[in-house]
Amino acid sequence: MPFPDGDSEKDGKVLFDWLILPYTADKFFENIWEKKPFCLSRHIPNYADGLFSSKELNRILKECNVRYSVNLDVTTYQNGCRETHNIEGRAFAPVVWDYYKNGCSIRIKNPQAFSKPVWRLCATLQEHFKSMVGANVYLTPPGSQGFAPHYDDIEAFVLQLEGEKQWNIYNPRNAAETLPRFSSKNFDESEIGEPIFSKTLQAGDLLYFPRGIIHQAKSLPDTHSLHITISTYQMNTWGDFLEKLLPATLQTAIADDIEFRKGLPLQYLSCLGLQNSDKNPEMRQHFFRKISDLFLRLARMADVDAVADERAINFLHDALPPYMTPDEKSRTIQGCDVTMASPGNPVQHICDIDEKTRIRVLRKNAIRIVTAQSDANDNSVVQVYHCVQNSRIYHSEEKKSFEMDEDCAPALEHLINSYPSYVTVNSLPLRTDEDKVRYVDISLRERHLGNGEKSKNVANLNCLIMCQL
Amino acid sequence: MPFPDGDSEKDGKVLFDWLILPYTADKFFENIWEKKPFCLSRHIPNYADGLFSSKELNRILKECNVRYSVNLDVTTYQNGCRETHNIEGRAFAPVVWDYYKNGCSIRIKNPQAFSKPVWRLCATLQEHFKSMVGANVYLTPPGSQGFAPHYDDIEAFVLQLEGEKQWNIYNPRNAAETLPRFSSKNFDESEIGEPIFSKTLQAGDLLYFPRGIIHQAKSLPDTHSLHITISTYQMNTWGDFLEKLLPATLQTAIADDIEFRKGLPLQYLSCLGLQNSDKNPEMRQHFFRKISDLFLRLARMADVDAVADERAINFLHDALPPYMTPDEKSRTIQGCDVTMASPGNPVQHICDIDEKTRIRVLRKNAIRIVTAQSDANDNSVVQVYHCVQNSRIYHSEEKKSFEMDEDCAPALEHLINSYPSYVTVNSLPLRTDEDKVRYVDISLRERHLGNGEKSKNVANLNCLIMCQL
Amino acid sequence: MPFPDGDSEKDGKVLFDWLILPYTADKFFENIWEKKPFCLSRHIPNYADGLFSSKELNRILKECNVRYSVNLDVTTYQNGCRETHNIEGRAFAPVVWDYYKNGCSIRIKNPQAFSKPVWRLCATLQEHFKSMVGANVYLTPPGSQGFAPHYDDIEAFVLQLEGEKQWNIYNPRNAAETLPRFSSKNFDESEIGEPIFSKTLQAGDLLYFPRGIIHQAKSLPDTHSLHITISTYQMNTWGDFLEKLLPATLQTAIADDIEFRKGLPLQYLSCLGLQNSDKNPEMRQHFFRKISDLFLRLARMADVDAVADERAINFLHDALPPYMTPDEKSRTIQGCDVTMASPGNPVQHICDIDEKTRIRVLRKNAIRIVTAQSDANDNSVVQVYHCVQNSRIYHSEEKKSFEMDEDCAPALEHLINSYPSYVTVNSLPLRTDEDKVRYVDISLRERHLGNGEKSKNVANLNCLIMCQL
Amino acid sequence: MPFPDGDSEKDGKVLFDWLILPYTADKFFENIWEKKPFCLSRHIPNYADGLFSSKELNRILKECNVRYSVNLDVTTYQNGCRETHNIEGRAFAPVVWDYYKNGCSIRIKNPQAFSKPVWRLCATLQEHFKSMVGANVYLTPPGSQGFAPHYDDIEAFVLQLEGEKQWNIYNPRNAAETLPRFSSKNFDESEIGEPIFSKTLQAGDLLYFPRGIIHQAKSLPDTHSLHITISTYQMNTWGDFLEKLLPATLQTAIADDIEFRKGLPLQYLSCLGLQNSDKNPEMRQHFFRKISDLFLRLARMADVDAVADERAINFLHDALPPYMTPDEKSRTIQGCDVTMASPGNPVQHICDIDEKTRIRVLRKNAIRIVTAQSDANDNSVVQVYHCVQNSRIYHSEEKKSFEMDEDCAPALEHLINSYPSYVTVNSLPLRTDEDKVRYVDISLRERHLGNGEKSKNVANLNCLIMCQL
Repeated sequence: MPFPDGDSEKDGKVLFDWLILPYTADKFFENIWEKKPFCLSRHIPNYADGLFSSKELNRILKECNVRYSVNLDVTTYQNGCRETHNIEGRAFAPVVWDYYKNGCSIRIKNPQAFSKPVWRLCATLQEHFKSMVGANVYLTPPGSQGFAPHYDDIEAFVLQLEGEKQWNIYNPRNAAETLPRFSSKNFDESEIGEPIFSKTLQAGDLLYFPRGIIHQAKSLPDTHSLHITISTYQMNTWGDFLEKLLPATLQTAIADDIEFRKGLPLQYLSCLGLQNSDKNPEMRQHFFRKISDLFLRLARMADVDAVADERAINFLHDALPPYMTPDEKSRTIQGCDVTMASPGNPVQHICDIDEKTRIRVLRKNAIRIVTAQSDANDNSVVQVYHCVQNSRIYHSEEKKSFEMDEDCAPALEHLINSYPSYVTVNSLPLRTDEDKVRYVDISLRERHLGNGEKSKNVANLNCLIMCQL
Repeated sequence: MPFPDGDSEKDGKVLFDWLILPYTADKFFENIWEKKPFCLSRHIPNYADGLFSSKELNRILKECNVRYSVNLDVTTYQNGCRETHNIEGRAFAPVVWDYYKNGCSIRIKNPQAFSKPVWRLCATLQEHFKSMVGANVYLTPPGSQGFAPHYDDIEAFVLQLEGEKQWNIYNPRNAAETLPRFSSKNFDESEIGEPIFSKTLQAGDLLYFPRGIIHQAKSLPDTHSLHITISTYQMNTWGDFLEKLLPATLQTAIADDIEFRKGLPLQYLSCLGLQNSDKNPEMRQHFFRKISDLFLRLARMADVDAVADERAINFLHDALPPYMTPDEKSRTIQGCDVTMASPGNPVQHICDIDEKTRIRVLRKNAIRIVTAQSDANDNSVVQVYHCVQNSRIYHSEEKKSFEMDEDCAPALEHLINSYPSYVTVNSLPLRTDEDKVRYVDISLRERHLGNGEKSKNVANLNCLIMCQL
Repeated sequence: MPFPDGDSEKDGKVLFDWLILPYTADKFFENIWEKKPFCLSRHIPNYADGLFSSKELNRILKECNVRYSVNLDVTTYQNGCRETHNIEGRAFAPVVWDYYKNGCSIRIKNPQAFSKPVWRLCATLQEHFKSMVGANVYLTPPGSQGFAPHYDDIEAFVLQLEGEKQWNIYNPRNAAETLPRFSSKNFDESEIGEPIFSKTLQAGDLLYFPRGIIHQAKSLPDTHSLHITISTYQMNTWGDFLEKLLPATLQTAIADDIEFRKGLPLQYLSCLGLQNSDKNPEMRQHFFRKISDLFLRLARMADVDAVADERAINFLHDALPPYMTPDEKSRTIQGCDVTMASPGNPVQHICDIDEKTRIRVLRKNAIRIVTAQSDANDNSVVQVYHCVQNSRIYHSEEKKSFEMDEDCAPALEHLINSYPSYVTVNSLPLRTDEDKVRYVDISLRERHLGNGEKSKNVANLNCLIMCQL
Repeated sequence: MPFPDGDSEKDGKVLFDWLILPYTADKFFENIWEKKPFCLSRHIPNYADGLFSSKELNRILKECNVRYSVNLDVTTYQNGCRETHNIEGRAFAPVVWDYYKNGCSIRIKNPQAFSKPVWRLCATLQEHFKSMVGANVYLTPPGSQGFAPHYDDIEAFVLQLEGEKQWNIYNPRNAAETLPRFSSKNFDESEIGEPIFSKTLQAGDLLYFPRGIIHQAKSLPDTHSLHITISTYQMNTWGDFLEKLLPATLQTAIADDIEFRKGLPLQYLSCLGLQNSDKNPEMRQHFFRKISDLFLRLARMADVDAVADERAINFLHDALPPYMTPDEKSRTIQGCDVTMASPGNPVQHICDIDEKTRIRVLRKNAIRIVTAQSDANDNSVVQVYHCVQNSRIYHSEEKKSFEMDEDCAPALEHLINSYPSYVTVNSLPLRTDEDKVRYVDISLRERHLGNGEKSKNVANLNCLIMCQL
């Protein structure tokens, strides 16, 4: 697995290229993505070494608070019957392995919460997809199958980590289940027809399939299987975009265009509806033309940018927090050391930021400057959303955002646009040198205690940037 | 006030013509409706006699359970200050008149619940407008004003009943308040500019103004004023129609058209939104064109008939029940007499309906056959909505509807389409003569006790029809 | 049925005596009430004439908005199977009678809402029982039964009005179902054992049974049956009283007595509970003694008067409004005539109350002066609850009450205590003669417009009193 | 701080003795507890070394996800004005220390979640108090005060860790605020009178005060202060016990004793309540006596054991999970190692428990066997509650419990009663030796896959026991 360079979008691209190597991204998105399943036999068993292993799973069970149902499922699929054997509470290693020895499959949900390499992989790929990237890990004992045939609501990248697994892949059952919005139930064999292909994955191999593709897999009689499924693009369609865009656009239209506020024709109920569909065709046509005209007006009024920002905010809520290397972390406020001269006496000047310090934002897509508005004191402010303080547990934190004075926003925009380059503090588009240092120096607070609003802006900004040493 | 002929749509038209006489309906809807205020000085003081009077108000207060705030408001507007003097509980005549003698205005809300002529007027006009028609009555003592300047969210027809009142009329303050969706607050004189005209209404005169037109009125020093305001077309606009149509259409599109289920482009968040509105113009254009294309697809998929039926159902919920004359009522199941031969012994054969009986539905627009579907036992059924059992109190009853076997629906459609003509029972498009009589004869139940579903259809139908004697 | 004298408590007693004649009330409450069923064969078929009849039922169905399920049930009980045949909407006379002719029983729920004699009977008896008195009417065609065996949660007085009905009466099945709090399900014959007696009621006869007594009844083959069941004492037990008293008392004790705020003993969990019930008996005994001691302290602190007032308020909410004769009504504000000198010109002086006018409250138990507190402006006030503006439909109105200045309360207390005697206005314990007339004269408002609070007191009081002419 | 012996109740007692040394527990509970404040100057500055320090705080801020408001407060109290300076999100060390350098006090809420010694102290003391034991840490820069005078709703033990702090202690303001149920607002100096004593705490010193005692403290001009406050006995009073006991007892009484189901006397509303308190004294007395009698009946029916169990369950929900030493942990299922022979191949036999293995429960008061009932399949079961899988974050986990077959319960009771002794598996009161090993051996599952219920019992039990090596 390639090591990150530190430029998040480039890292995301590099990791995606690695994921589908020797295929190429251009061809993938042109021929495969959302179109058909796709399989790569790489014949490099250690291709994904270091990402995850059954040994790592053993460590996690001992050291982490892994809970049945929440983080781990114990399942079987035998004779067409899918069962879940979860008990309550924490999953202790001896119990989980006992299930496994007795033929149960183990699914780790959200392994990125326990495994740093998986976190790194998902957090980096999400800079590429601009959509949440999740993962599940599946451990299957020899000669068994843990799940019934079904389809999912996400784009799936299956990476074989240990052993082998034989996959059967089936086309969607009909047009309505092609690129579906929601996952299927567990299917009976009789409902899914013949597979379009069968394939045995070996360690290092990749299998991709779009949402709606039905699939099932079993381990071979003599070897176990461990794979990770990377998922993305859940609810990330044109339809999802329009579900936000349409109601907002209509409200704008009603407020701004009197055509939408005029009364309906006196007789419209008499020429429309089930009992009138064969009556008064001329009046019906007239009504339909008016409706078409109003749709056209709506299209011209649609505020696409506002909806994009709304979706970006939701993406930042869904997203993993950035994975930072120890070196990266040491150059952020989180990793910055405070020395204690004596008990109760921390060393005075803490982070040595001056006008020549070179800084950048942590990640390209971890921050979004959104709405321009006024705060409670009627100052012009923008709202800044970010995922930097998200938890590795999905949605366990609220959306993170803070207000920033509108005249400080260009400095943050400058930082975002300059990424991945570092820029000096004195190149920030702010008025005075003092402003510039203050903008990123938490010691500002010293001079502003009691002036809460100003201090808050700065404290919040601090967690978004990293220095170059 | 003209006496109804018994053909509800014609009656509605006749009453509307009477309302705006000597102006004509064609000219009214072409030049006035939703466009501008309009005033008729008829010089016929007894033009609306019999509709409502202060004497009738006195009767209502004594005989009916009129409640403060619910049915009656006591108000003053003095020195720019609007006050409500309602107490709690029932409004007794001596107390109300005492308020009045002390300079308070009295507003009767929903007088159609207490006054038969007002009920008749509103219920008949609603057959013309196909939108709920409501009313308020305002009694103002000499030399006073009860309400602050404001605008409403309905089309208003003010009919002067007693005394005189001087009106000041003002244009909407801006484009956004022209044909507004919601009523205004009480305005201060300084907010509304100069009136576009002033006019003193005398008994028999009419004043119309569209929603959004600001108005205020006061009685003259030496005479009281009594007027009724007839209102209609609340929330009955193209925008209201689209609020139902758009979400339904999008759900249909997502289910039926794969274009709406395809993923958004990988980079779309990077070229849209506040911080990106100046970036990557080509990709932005491409995105906007795609959105326009999807709006066009939506327009072609819009199920206008379904939304019209949904609005028709809501209209039937809002609507007043039909006002029936004693003669009409005697020809319905409600007015049909049952004679008691002795205590506990009603005369056996009740309503003499046979195949030659001539029947019609009670009112043209009181019934709507809506969705075709299946009932709990998987029979094909339609849903029939109606306002015949509505209360005269707005929304105090739930929506009224019943299921009807789909093969019985043509008989009801035939009745609706034949209106106002009566048709013989044996002309109904049902299979056998027995079926036809059963269809409208409640005595059917006699043979079907325990066969609930079938009986229900019939019992429900019975309340929708009237016989010709 | 005796005609009311106008003294409500006496009237209530007279009507109750009439109900159980020739038995006496003293003996009834000593030997029968809540103890055992009781039957009176009076042999006076017209004993209850004028209360209700099948002819009156026919009138009600034609003239009133009687709704299935809400006001009327159509039922059968055949071969051990209890069915309800209600359809939706209004119950039209021909349909109801058709059900009846086909063997269905008809139950009128809440007939006091449609029948003045039933209203008068219930409203008057409630002055005797100080607990809500309700009623149901049951009409049964010949040779049938409408209801399964069951018991109720109320004391029931069954008065036969027309025809005959044969009753089977059974003891409660066990101690827990003796005087039960809730009604039973429908029993199967196999669950109820043998009747303790059977009895055929004839017109004029009475049957009483306490809650918990199982009963069923059928009409004879050749005659129909009509009876009314008068019910009272629902949820009116010592347990219901304690359910209010206990939590209030404990809160008082915790606030006022430090013993209740002291910590529990350090080891108490180790000597109590399932797993410790056999451990440390000495410490357990000590704990139990302390608990007993705290119960004794609670008993001494119980504020019985406050709970009685709370229950009185709830009774006034449940209660029927007083039934007033036309003569009585003419002496109240509701029946007081206002003459119109000309349109919009009511005659100035309305109700001629002066200091010599003799007045009393409408009914003894229709008013309750309750809590002493302060109003929003920090004046000392009492709260006055009443049932005078209740609807005849159970709980269709909110609780009715108003504030009264504390120094006016003695006047109202004087009125309540003087009942049934009329007292002159100038005998009211208020300071000045002007105060006394003002207290009851609505014309007070004339001088106080804008002084809302004061006026409200008076307006509210007005509806509670009646003049002597 | 003494090192635990491994017998939890004894350890709790030892740690409490250490806390109040050189005072003794017997005298403390007799003279001080819940009675008055109490101060110990030990003159041993390193008395509590290893419990918590400002250096440890610095480590926690760097390594743990400490959140403003959730885990940490930044406060000042200057010139009678108490302010909170919390910002949003994670508290980074440089920012927190900057606040501190600028005169702000820092409060760590729930330090037991971040510090193992604090967790150990609280978890062990809770075995002594049988009530949740919590903690807060307060760091105050020199010459400042962070909090306004107030009182709390818990028993407080203040242990000075670094520097010095001067305390002012005040009596409760009145009887109602002695041992109060809820904490006070921040007081103004003018509201609290003169202190009953002032005292400067030095490192190693202890201050205790009961709930209701008002207190405030400030650091000296030249030295900072760090102290920890240990709290317990929140809502753990006789009143709290009765709040559960009374309603349950009344429901039992109503169900079992007909006296509680009898009707109230016909006239009771006429002799009780505000307006009747001077009427009919004899009837009032009779009513009061009846109420007293019913209280006595209630006292005799009270099910004290059931309420004790309910409170024990709530205590186990509130409680910290046991702190286990590495040695202890290695003898539990959590610390038991699973070796991987090769990837995907864990070594077969996992925990070597046989009939001679000696086991005990983890902690004396961490488990409670509660209600006897039947499970879904109608087997007799008991419910076992425990705090072993609780989180160190208060209430972040649901109550933990599982069902156990009733015939297995004696084995668990035996284990609880034998604590702190270890017992051999074959001494468990179960039928067969196989049963005994199965009871505690997770390998049982191997033979019972698909027999979910049985396996669950055992898996749950496993986490409650520890082996002796």
